[in-house]
Amino acid sequence: MALEAGVDREEAVHKPSLDPLSRLLGSDLEHVNRLIVDRMQSPVALIPQIAGHIVASGGKRLRPMLTLGCARLCGYSGSRHIALAAAVEFIHTATLLHDDVVDASDLRRGRETANAVWGNQPAILVGDFLFSRSFELMVRDGSLRILEILSRASSVIAEGEVLQLMTQNNLQTTEAAYLEVIRAKTAELFAAASRIGAVVAERPHVEEMALDRFGRDLGIAFQLVDDMLDFSARQTELGKSIGDDFRDGKVTLPILLAFARGDEEERTFWRRTLEDMDQYPPDLEHATALVERHGALTETLSRARRYAASAIDALSVFPDGPERRALIAAASFATERSA
Amino acid sequence: MALEAGVDREEAVHKPSLDPLSRLLGSDLEHVNRLIVDRMQSPVALIPQIAGHIVASGGKRLRPMLTLGCARLCGYSGSRHIALAAAVEFIHTATLLHDDVVDASDLRRGRETANAVWGNQPAILVGDFLFSRSFELMVRDGSLRILEILSRASSVIAEGEVLQLMTQNNLQTTEAAYLEVIRAKTAELFAAASRIGAVVAERPHVEEMALDRFGRDLGIAFQLVDDMLDFSARQTELGKSIGDDFRDGKVTLPILLAFARGDEEERTFWRRTLEDMDQYPPDLEHATALVERHGALTETLSRARRYAASAIDALSVFPDGPERRALIAAASFATERSA
Repeated sequence: MALEAGVDREEAVHKPSLDPLSRLLGSDLEHVNRLIVDRMQSPVALIPQIAGHIVASGGKRLRPMLTLGCARLCGYSGSRHIALAAAVEFIHTATLLHDDVVDASDLRRGRETANAVWGNQPAILVGDFLFSRSFELMVRDGSLRILEILSRASSVIAEGEVLQLMTQNNLQTTEAAYLEVIRAKTAELFAAASRIGAVVAERPHVEEMALDRFGRDLGIAFQLVDDMLDFSARQTELGKSIGDDFRDGKVTLPILLAFARGDEEERTFWRRTLEDMDQYPPDLEHATALVERHGALTETLSRARRYAASAIDALSVFPDGPERRALIAAASFATERSA
Repeated sequence: MALEAGVDREEAVHKPSLDPLSRLLGSDLEHVNRLIVDRMQSPVALIPQIAGHIVASGGKRLRPMLTLGCARLCGYSGSRHIALAAAVEFIHTATLLHDDVVDASDLRRGRETANAVWGNQPAILVGDFLFSRSFELMVRDGSLRILEILSRASSVIAEGEVLQLMTQNNLQTTEAAYLEVIRAKTAELFAAASRIGAVVAERPHVEEMALDRFGRDLGIAFQLVDDMLDFSARQTELGKSIGDDFRDGKVTLPILLAFARGDEEERTFWRRTLEDMDQYPPDLEHATALVERHGALTETLSRARRYAASAIDALSVFPDGPERRALIAAASFATERSA
């Protein structure tokens, strides 16, 4: 009986979910949200309008939750992690604003994008503003080590975004190049967000690097799943748009796999739709059928799970406890989510 | 004879020119240029291509020269000012890349813009990259005070750019609002670039603030002259484009003055061309005739000269010497230049 209850509890805490981490963080995330709202203010009224819009469309606050959770895992009991988590989220929202301009996106998470509502010009400039504000937050915190980690991450993200542009519309893209793109554009910030949790807690280098690997592998898993979900019918049920990557001509892993496994007729289809960008309404459905037929979505998910498992393994240098269990549940959530 | 030679020398060093400052800085500026080229490298080949293009189109290196010159004025004899000057120039080039996208400009200083050659997408992303690199340079320098000054300046620049968007196509813009825009988008970085010269030399606060005022007033003078030169025939002789602001519907001081001084027919012309953006080829010539007829260019230049004089006054806390004289000649150059 006692054993069974123990097993049940064990399963419950490892169930893929962000809830244990949310519960553990208590009011920390709320403090981060309040600081975000406070620091996006400006006498130029359009700035808080646009910043508020993107912050609200920004999603689950996964990256700041990593900073907060990793700081807790490292036994940190101060309050500096709040501002650092906000800085991480500002970097993320700045890149979202610019991404939506670069991709000419109209929708993000079912809401109109800032560029769709206000045009490209203010979206670009408010992105610059949030990026600067992020550095102001870090400077106020005063850790040069953290400034180093996050300024480096920002450069790498920009490099990843440029590299992504260069793989766009190019079916010659190798899996290695694709992985390089997602490592840079997504995993680098996950790694930095996690790592600074150890820095703020002044933990030894080995723990810092463990959290770096945790965040990095988790970020890769997260992006692989994102790229898979772009073909998932479940998204449509949830009122979210699918096929964004396909319409942008982005060459993601599901497409690379389906292209490699396809026959000549299929390859002609991919070349027309993604390289020549000559697309018609029924093409997305056909593309989805192809990635499903070739097991490209299952394969993408299975690779994501391997990265998530590796992320969880990286936490083994930390003792078992509610913090580690909450981060494990969050890492599992990254691959088992449906949106 | 001796007196006359003295007067001649005095006049020579105060003649509006960047040459005395260039001579004084010796190889410093070359070191800055080398560091810029070194730090814009990336394994993503498109990044150094675009960065190299904008750095080459970037002009006179006025901002890094201010950092170098002010550090020298403060008796600084180390080498940290090189990296800081490069960081300042990186912030400037990042904003140029984004400005050209925002304004949809095809030409900058007679050369095609990065967005014209490579498109908006990489121009936005390489701007982000250079901005991040700028912070990496500052972090490596390690002064939190300087990071504070330059991260704050970056936020203010972005605010100024958004404010400029909001005054665009709006002839209700007040002179105060116009001044607020140029203070933020231009003068703030001139102020920060100059001020950090005192910080790196560990000079007292009064000198830091004197250089802040020097840079700020010089920046305003510089932008006023820029806005005047946009209507100057001399620019065309030099092979440079004129009328960019007019075509973008930017409401600069020459236009504000001509609009205020114009009759109803003229105001109808300004409203059609700048608010309704309904422009025809002969309109620029008519606009130029109007700003000239109302003395709007002379008035703009005269205000610029007053700001430049105030900038020069701010240097009075420093002893006379070749450094101060070179900065005075550079400040005079800002208003007397013809391009």
